[in-house]
Amino acid sequence: MKLDRLVGERFKERPSDCVIDSHALMIRGGYMKQVSNGIYSQFMPLKRIAHKVERIIREEMDAIDGQEVLFPVVMPASLWEESGRYESVGKELARFVDRNEKKLILGMTHEEACVHLVKEYGNSYTKYPFMVYQIQTKFRDEARPRAGLIRVREFTMKDAYSFHTSQEDLEEYYERCYEAYLRIFARAGIPDVVAVSSDPGMMGGNISHEFMLLTPVGEDTVVLCTECDYKANMEAAESIVENTRDEVSKELELVSTPATKTIEALCDFLGITKEKTCKAVMYRRNIDDKIIVVFIRGDLDVNETKVRNYLGFEIHPADIEEGEGIVPGFTGPVNLSGEIIVLFDKSLENTNNMVTGGNVEDYHYVGLDFARDLKDVEFHDLAKAVEGGICPQCGNKSLTVKRGIEVGNIFQLGTKYTESMGMEYIDSDGKPRNPIMGCYGIGVGRLIASVAEVHHDENGPIWPMSISPWQVHICALRSDEPNVKEFADKLYENLMKKGIEVIYDDRNVSAGVMFSDADLLGVPVRVIVSPRNLKNNVCEITARDKSFTIQEPIESVEEKLVEIVKSNLC
Amino acid sequence: MKLDRLVGERFKERPSDCVIDSHALMIRGGYMKQVSNGIYSQFMPLKRIAHKVERIIREEMDAIDGQEVLFPVVMPASLWEESGRYESVGKELARFVDRNEKKLILGMTHEEACVHLVKEYGNSYTKYPFMVYQIQTKFRDEARPRAGLIRVREFTMKDAYSFHTSQEDLEEYYERCYEAYLRIFARAGIPDVVAVSSDPGMMGGNISHEFMLLTPVGEDTVVLCTECDYKANMEAAESIVENTRDEVSKELELVSTPATKTIEALCDFLGITKEKTCKAVMYRRNIDDKIIVVFIRGDLDVNETKVRNYLGFEIHPADIEEGEGIVPGFTGPVNLSGEIIVLFDKSLENTNNMVTGGNVEDYHYVGLDFARDLKDVEFHDLAKAVEGGICPQCGNKSLTVKRGIEVGNIFQLGTKYTESMGMEYIDSDGKPRNPIMGCYGIGVGRLIASVAEVHHDENGPIWPMSISPWQVHICALRSDEPNVKEFADKLYENLMKKGIEVIYDDRNVSAGVMFSDADLLGVPVRVIVSPRNLKNNVCEITARDKSFTIQEPIESVEEKLVEIVKSNLC
Repeated sequence: MKLDRLVGERFKERPSDCVIDSHALMIRGGYMKQVSNGIYSQFMPLKRIAHKVERIIREEMDAIDGQEVLFPVVMPASLWEESGRYESVGKELARFVDRNEKKLILGMTHEEACVHLVKEYGNSYTKYPFMVYQIQTKFRDEARPRAGLIRVREFTMKDAYSFHTSQEDLEEYYERCYEAYLRIFARAGIPDVVAVSSDPGMMGGNISHEFMLLTPVGEDTVVLCTECDYKANMEAAESIVENTRDEVSKELELVSTPATKTIEALCDFLGITKEKTCKAVMYRRNIDDKIIVVFIRGDLDVNETKVRNYLGFEIHPADIEEGEGIVPGFTGPVNLSGEIIVLFDKSLENTNNMVTGGNVEDYHYVGLDFARDLKDVEFHDLAKAVEGGICPQCGNKSLTVKRGIEVGNIFQLGTKYTESMGMEYIDSDGKPRNPIMGCYGIGVGRLIASVAEVHHDENGPIWPMSISPWQVHICALRSDEPNVKEFADKLYENLMKKGIEVIYDDRNVSAGVMFSDADLLGVPVRVIVSPRNLKNNVCEITARDKSFTIQEPIESVEEKLVEIVKSNLC
Repeated sequence: MKLDRLVGERFKERPSDCVIDSHALMIRGGYMKQVSNGIYSQFMPLKRIAHKVERIIREEMDAIDGQEVLFPVVMPASLWEESGRYESVGKELARFVDRNEKKLILGMTHEEACVHLVKEYGNSYTKYPFMVYQIQTKFRDEARPRAGLIRVREFTMKDAYSFHTSQEDLEEYYERCYEAYLRIFARAGIPDVVAVSSDPGMMGGNISHEFMLLTPVGEDTVVLCTECDYKANMEAAESIVENTRDEVSKELELVSTPATKTIEALCDFLGITKEKTCKAVMYRRNIDDKIIVVFIRGDLDVNETKVRNYLGFEIHPADIEEGEGIVPGFTGPVNLSGEIIVLFDKSLENTNNMVTGGNVEDYHYVGLDFARDLKDVEFHDLAKAVEGGICPQCGNKSLTVKRGIEVGNIFQLGTKYTESMGMEYIDSDGKPRNPIMGCYGIGVGRLIASVAEVHHDENGPIWPMSISPWQVHICALRSDEPNVKEFADKLYENLMKKGIEVIYDDRNVSAGVMFSDADLLGVPVRVIVSPRNLKNNVCEITARDKSFTIQEPIESVEEKLVEIVKSNLC
């Protein structure tokens, strides 16, 4: 490819709406252009990278006996009504009607379509296990698209679905897929991805993992143990709390605490630590706005996912106004009345001498002893794990909290979909049973952006050879000089004949322009043909990541480049 | 691939809802499954064929300097409002709103998205010409999906867009693309595709061609000359009519013609031929239902596209009720009054002694002389060409009318999109100009179905080697016999090692089941390993199209298969 023919603009200024580097560099480098919020068109370099990533994914999916299929982008609502998700999934599911007013949806995941496709095939235990996958465009109407290809509304995704006759067989396959995922990420240039336990959310099922690329710009939070191999995302991380009990329980007493609506103000006013307070966090049930109050130790935060999972219905954080039986800023569990769902976090279990809202404006209770003062209270793990917290696996105070980008996920789905959609097989004993499913996703664009996020400098991405849009970048400096042009032209032709993917810059521009464009395209190996080099009978070969610069004799430059390309290929 | 692991069902019965063979065979062969009207999921064999077709398309597009990009499936309505198509395109454009009530559409073509992508890049004449293309899922809410993958609502399409600074440059590129298309169809196994002139329709522009695969099951009509190379689709085909004039013009006279609402009844009643009648064909303007009457010689049909193009607005066939100034069944051009748009086909020019409606119930005029009796009448070509009609190119009465499937199309778009969307470049004289566009489409699924339509027998498709899901099909008959199993296993392994794509059937089933499954999968070369064959130290190699059967010695069977595969590859 001649660079001067490459459609797309490259420029120096960081776009003001880009919060992370990979986004800014992929806009600056002419990789993509936003069409609407969270919807992008892709230029050739990005499309080439995507092809290579998809090839790696295909090879690894085929290697674990996957069969590539294709499900539709547009599906009838009836399919999602069968599984119950047409109702249960929120606004992220795009819904519309066709010319005959028939309800349709845009696929954001394809469990239903997959069960529909393989339902008849999988009618006997002899057909199992099997896995099918697709690489297809999906649309998810995200409330807050952000960070370029990290969180978009339209995206290309590999989604795989496996079917089994026993939980053991699923687990065995799940493990194979887990390993295949680690190989995919390693081959794409991010071997440091960690798999963490996660909450299955809308997918259903019990066990699931997310593959996290740890980076400060990630939008997910991951909890890791520094002493053992415990890893979980924040939603799924267990919170274990030591709550010490004072030797003597004081009396329960309502005291005046004017203008202390926040925990901070209350602690200041009474001269106590947050650990001695019991705070109220408010939610509402989506379906009818019923109030839910979660009581938790004042130094901890509520893990909304745990609350949702415990309750089994959708909730949202609530701003409670006065007059619904709640006194905002002064809510406590003693004498709380009204049509309210009340939950208690484990951090409050067995505590005494706690301070909590008095359910009267400007008053708090002090001296609260949970065991003594509140009857029939159940405590549940509803808190977020914290830095330095207790590891649920090894018991050390060794939890650390990091940011990460989720580059893949795998789920053990159980029979949620096969049961609701009536998929059955006849088992070896002649009895009908529902197959057990697993599903496995990787977002292609997000993976590419993640690679750029960990492999870049201020001048551009540094693509790993395995997914780079081209393998060698030829810069012909002073291509107006015939010997430069002639040598570079021939090098370009010969490298292509040897199967090397070459981008060739023979524009009559300054070295500065040429190198900054090359930096933005991020090709790992660059060869510079210039009058000065040729005078010395050499070409300069440099690595985009600055790991080497070689003065290679012109006789062996082709051979050397081929060697570098081949040795870097995963 | 082991056949017993292949997900998908194969069966014998022709599904009752399949009107054409390719559709029936691709359902029977486990290639696809309908999810909704005109929406299919694809099993592995079809996906493999699609990959190969897409690779051929990519290679040919790259060979004419195309750059692969990707446009979104979901686009903001605002983009289509810029070009005016958000309003002008009908219900086939799927429209919906996102969570913020912002209007979105599903891409059925991507001229707008393409101009949006390259607008800034193409700011100088030095950047031209260039072409970008994508292979992407599209959705078009067809009123009548039919014939399997021939006419669907969701489909994978290659769409390409070229940009030029002069009409000459566009025409030169158009020619290159035309040739590339012929190469694509030939490589995919249908070299007999003919390119016909077509009507650009909603795309805009002047010159366009459709690539037609002639087959009786096609839904398009093509007009070809048997004496020269004139080719056009019915919409675009010129109609040239010889209308002979009687020597003596009779008088214009209103005569009683009771119950003669049709041309046939009228001709019977008066004992005349259809050529001596002038019939009225009714339409309405979509926007306000205003009546349009097209007068045409009674033996000819109106070409609705020509009427639409002449008028410049959308129309639909109308069932006219009495009382709008029209007397249905008795409408004629003499003394016709009311708010009506009246058009005349060229077939009426200069005719005399014609019979036409009297605009009075049960009365017709006879003796109509157009030149004498009607003032200021303009005649236009509004008729459909007919079998045996006059060729507009060579003048012989040598037109023939055939059915065809449109497997591709190319358009010279002019500046319709660049002008409406404000895309400009600075020309060599420093002046801003709108680039000239071409666009070029191929539907991947329709192409595959078309190949199956011309290459099949009653038992299944006969795939050309170039796009076959696998290259060699091994049938191990009596795989329960150890020597059969051992030989077939080894053959399978060794062929794969040599890069051959093999489907291997080692099921313990009858030869009948095995061969009918192989017929449905349509792999061009089959090798049969059986106890009897092995006893004779041979394998039987047969062609799916029955062109050969070879008894190949077991020592050379691998070599022979590799040779057959390689020599059949396009």
